[in-house]
Amino acid sequence: MTSGAAGQALDVAVFGAGRIGRIHAANLARQPGVRLKYVIDVNREAAQALAAQHGAQVAGIDDAFGDASIGATVICSSTDTHSELIMRSAAAGKHIFCEKPVDLAIGRARECADAVARAGVVAMIGFQRRYDPTFAALKQRLDAGEIGTPEMLVVTSRDPGAPPVEYIKHSGGIFKDMLIHDFDIFRWILDDEADTVHATGSCLSDPAIAEAGDIDATAVTIRTKRGRLCQINTARRAAYGYDQRFEVLGSAGMLQAGNMRPTEVVAWSKTSVAQDVPEAFFLERYRAAYASEMAHFHEAVTQGKPVRTTVADGLKALELAEAAALSWREGRVVKVGA
Amino acid sequence: MTSGAAGQALDVAVFGAGRIGRIHAANLARQPGVRLKYVIDVNREAAQALAAQHGAQVAGIDDAFGDASIGATVICSSTDTHSELIMRSAAAGKHIFCEKPVDLAIGRARECADAVARAGVVAMIGFQRRYDPTFAALKQRLDAGEIGTPEMLVVTSRDPGAPPVEYIKHSGGIFKDMLIHDFDIFRWILDDEADTVHATGSCLSDPAIAEAGDIDATAVTIRTKRGRLCQINTARRAAYGYDQRFEVLGSAGMLQAGNMRPTEVVAWSKTSVAQDVPEAFFLERYRAAYASEMAHFHEAVTQGKPVRTTVADGLKALELAEAAALSWREGRVVKVGA
Amino acid sequence: MTSGAAGQALDVAVFGAGRIGRIHAANLARQPGVRLKYVIDVNREAAQALAAQHGAQVAGIDDAFGDASIGATVICSSTDTHSELIMRSAAAGKHIFCEKPVDLAIGRARECADAVARAGVVAMIGFQRRYDPTFAALKQRLDAGEIGTPEMLVVTSRDPGAPPVEYIKHSGGIFKDMLIHDFDIFRWILDDEADTVHATGSCLSDPAIAEAGDIDATAVTIRTKRGRLCQINTARRAAYGYDQRFEVLGSAGMLQAGNMRPTEVVAWSKTSVAQDVPEAFFLERYRAAYASEMAHFHEAVTQGKPVRTTVADGLKALELAEAAALSWREGRVVKVGA
Amino acid sequence: MTSGAAGQALDVAVFGAGRIGRIHAANLARQPGVRLKYVIDVNREAAQALAAQHGAQVAGIDDAFGDASIGATVICSSTDTHSELIMRSAAAGKHIFCEKPVDLAIGRARECADAVARAGVVAMIGFQRRYDPTFAALKQRLDAGEIGTPEMLVVTSRDPGAPPVEYIKHSGGIFKDMLIHDFDIFRWILDDEADTVHATGSCLSDPAIAEAGDIDATAVTIRTKRGRLCQINTARRAAYGYDQRFEVLGSAGMLQAGNMRPTEVVAWSKTSVAQDVPEAFFLERYRAAYASEMAHFHEAVTQGKPVRTTVADGLKALELAEAAALSWREGRVVKVGA
Repeated sequence: MTSGAAGQALDVAVFGAGRIGRIHAANLARQPGVRLKYVIDVNREAAQALAAQHGAQVAGIDDAFGDASIGATVICSSTDTHSELIMRSAAAGKHIFCEKPVDLAIGRARECADAVARAGVVAMIGFQRRYDPTFAALKQRLDAGEIGTPEMLVVTSRDPGAPPVEYIKHSGGIFKDMLIHDFDIFRWILDDEADTVHATGSCLSDPAIAEAGDIDATAVTIRTKRGRLCQINTARRAAYGYDQRFEVLGSAGMLQAGNMRPTEVVAWSKTSVAQDVPEAFFLERYRAAYASEMAHFHEAVTQGKPVRTTVADGLKALELAEAAALSWREGRVVKVGA
Repeated sequence: MTSGAAGQALDVAVFGAGRIGRIHAANLARQPGVRLKYVIDVNREAAQALAAQHGAQVAGIDDAFGDASIGATVICSSTDTHSELIMRSAAAGKHIFCEKPVDLAIGRARECADAVARAGVVAMIGFQRRYDPTFAALKQRLDAGEIGTPEMLVVTSRDPGAPPVEYIKHSGGIFKDMLIHDFDIFRWILDDEADTVHATGSCLSDPAIAEAGDIDATAVTIRTKRGRLCQINTARRAAYGYDQRFEVLGSAGMLQAGNMRPTEVVAWSKTSVAQDVPEAFFLERYRAAYASEMAHFHEAVTQGKPVRTTVADGLKALELAEAAALSWREGRVVKVGA
Repeated sequence: MTSGAAGQALDVAVFGAGRIGRIHAANLARQPGVRLKYVIDVNREAAQALAAQHGAQVAGIDDAFGDASIGATVICSSTDTHSELIMRSAAAGKHIFCEKPVDLAIGRARECADAVARAGVVAMIGFQRRYDPTFAALKQRLDAGEIGTPEMLVVTSRDPGAPPVEYIKHSGGIFKDMLIHDFDIFRWILDDEADTVHATGSCLSDPAIAEAGDIDATAVTIRTKRGRLCQINTARRAAYGYDQRFEVLGSAGMLQAGNMRPTEVVAWSKTSVAQDVPEAFFLERYRAAYASEMAHFHEAVTQGKPVRTTVADGLKALELAEAAALSWREGRVVKVGA
Repeated sequence: MTSGAAGQALDVAVFGAGRIGRIHAANLARQPGVRLKYVIDVNREAAQALAAQHGAQVAGIDDAFGDASIGATVICSSTDTHSELIMRSAAAGKHIFCEKPVDLAIGRARECADAVARAGVVAMIGFQRRYDPTFAALKQRLDAGEIGTPEMLVVTSRDPGAPPVEYIKHSGGIFKDMLIHDFDIFRWILDDEADTVHATGSCLSDPAIAEAGDIDATAVTIRTKRGRLCQINTARRAAYGYDQRFEVLGSAGMLQAGNMRPTEVVAWSKTSVAQDVPEAFFLERYRAAYASEMAHFHEAVTQGKPVRTTVADGLKALELAEAAALSWREGRVVKVGA
């Protein structure tokens, strides 16, 4: 299927009817001409609920790929299914939206990148942060030269709490699971590639995470090929909630992207002047980003606009995650791409 | 028509296909079971555009009232049509959502209040600010006793620019057109009624407004029956945009409701540390409020929940607007309800 | 004594060794060439403590006025002594710094203004807020045209708690005791004079204040001769501390003067993102203002620079306080100067 | 000389009459009983100016050490003189306040630490940041357990512009010259010692700095013996001024220390809502810290209170600076104390 005019009919199959699948489905269904035709999930109940909401059918994987009318797939199933569904979508000439990561194995992710390139389909990775209004406005002002040449990036990225250890065991580790987004932010904001990576970390919130071979707090430093510096600090647990900030120091000033709050109430008491804590977690914090992301995917598919978060971007972020994990494990600076 | 279960079918007629009509229509159409059946507007093109968007029909006033299947009317037409459409809706037993003001004439507004009371229909006035997340959260915390007894309210309410003088001539004056919202905020937040009102003002932005017999900046003070104090300052033109703030001083602290910004970017330059100006105007600032308001109307109609912004509230705000206008014209303190 | 060169010797007598007397004495003593020679206070212990700190002598009133070497008097004694000390200072040709108010009786204050004018001495009233770095910077930017023509002023002025009722009984009432500063801010910032004043108020914190014939919360509105608007809200008790803010709306923007905080610590907890409450009270909030004020007095005396807060300013503020008190008592709008 | 009672006489010799020497001299002279007796500087004009201001004499080094009445030395001369003056002060039994660093050579700094320990004199290093009201309040709240166990520290430390290259050539490099303060903050806030250090950096503002063998932007990561993480980002040039912030993530929340602004004016224009840029540079930013620091030194000397910033602290910070410089030069992680 080739890209066409806005508002043209687009039939879609959604893989994965979990939390993020439901959000993507709703955002995509809102685009003109889009019809959710199939919902595929091993959890039949979840699939039925989502299908019912959008007048879609619950289906199997083969149904979706066997139906030539399906123009695009939305892949929100578990990580270990991503690459296969990407490969099959590409083979069937269907446009692809896939949640991060492409795959936990870089080799497999490269095969996906090659496959979608050969197939000539639109393929977009769900790095939703690039579509966040605050982050996108900052990037636009940076590109417009407001602070001169960017020189340093400091990223703060903290979750409100660690996921269950069972999840962590299959997550690919904190660098691939959590920092993958921060590595993408780094590449996007500094518009540069890593030369060296240093990562260290600790397990501070729950010993079970250490027992699972992982850490829950990291400190990463990247020096780029052009000599720019980036520091990323992350934690699985910030008691005050979801903390998503970054700041770029440029030769002529600084741009900061702050957290969003649910309300703008300020409370003055005997002891403090207090505002709301940040939006609770990614579903709230990135609500507008998810909507904008899916509108962008729709535009790419129907109007042929270039995709802003490609499989190649997914691959690059994954390479950084691997380099960081290696740096952490071996306690040394890692040269990227060497 | 009586109220029923959530999700039950509700056919709706929308009067007025202008800016605010389109917003209310979209927000109502999103509720489960709601169908926009008729769009009525003297501007046929606007009516057709809105109808097309929601699969509704363009119709005449009599079509709407003659169709027994219509359960509710949404009145967003020009102010001089409000009271007649309310009266006819009440007579036809249809639930009513009506934009503010009920009518520019208090007597006529009272007739409307009586009519909806007699008819027993749900009747809701579009004081959307009460549904704003920030304002609603503040009210909830106030009611929970967070700052003790409320004692003083300071309201800042400024538009980004004056409307055309032609509009102002038919607006009923700044107190009925613009401060009507602030008078409602006053009653809602302090949970009290005015004892005396003092208002003064000036025409500072455009002499044509003075020639039309109106002013563009006001300073209003209300003392309540319980001795609480309220000051409202308004301006038709704030160069920096739409400014919607208030603060409540209580015996144990203060709660402030601040503006919302489009993004959380902070720019550090040689000369300043700068944030975004506030959301541009009411459509942006109260986007969430409009959505929440229509969900509330839908709940009231389908689940029988009491309406929070009644025709009586509209009447009270109108009385305050009249008292303020009188105070301004005669340069004296006005006793309310005397 | 005539004004002379910076650094020249200036011998000073300080009347009143209380809290504010000690601050003024220390700030003045810091100026080059200044010597505190006499401290006069009915409280001999306080006088001795202050005198000891600065190598001064405890003296009686006549000692100070009889000593021709005394170039300036600093009057920080109780309000009922101000006018006499001003008159005697003027008669003796001594420069005068006097705390507000000049006198509680306007007639007496006028006599003071006349006397200092005839004597040709430097006479400065302690409206320290004009010397506050934040307020002064705002005024300078306003005068430089940053927000165009000023149109509206909103002043928030709240104390952390009411003084003892005994104090209130002799204070001249809230308008002369507390709002006198706000009336001066109004004249200074808008650079305009009042045409009409409306004031209302309540006693909300302590019934004993009402029994003493006073109120503890006020809402004042001033319309200026040029049609500009000013609203002042005050309270004797703000549970969160000393609240000193104002904002000026101009034709091209707005300037706000905010509170100062003891530290810039921000605490992120499970429930809020919290900053410090404002500086505790006037001694902390206006520390820099007091220092700058006395440096200004010294400059005026030794270099002949014009005084920025004159007895005439004190008189004008007093007239506004009287007009406001009249408006409050009679429940009507008062024409100023009529 | 042994420590004694508050207010007792203390004669002082000040070495170095430059910018910081003048500040320390003025702050120390303000303490009760303190007399500046000698000012020593190779720049005779500067020495004379400072001496005149405090009624001191210009003297030579030997004069100061030969005068048994001198109880304390304040060492603000160039870095290469610090260690010798410390050694001579210790030998002469005089208490010592010395600006950072102790010496650029660790061996020499160790000799100083040993010498003051043997001599039993009070010896304090000028890490003024610990005395900053914001930083000190944060530390106190941290120690009180407000955010549980500290886990991560992020330090932002940026100057408004690079010093002359001539200065840089003799500065010992950015890690010893600029980050020495940040290394002290790290040890103080996390109350822990470094296990490993990684540092990287670039020369981004001026190639002449690179030619001098130095860099102007760094990114340092420290992992502590207890597994806590610290990231420090620095730059010689922040176009918006002097930027001194840090934040501590703890198990139960976060504490941030923000910049201070000259005023609390907020300007609302068509394009932004803007506050002041931070205080210009260290003299303004740390004005209160310098005053508090010298009061602390005076207390230590006269009341025998333990010094909070010891020569040992200076030594530890220097070791971190050396480790960081090694890490940067060799592109590897450095084990501290190994």
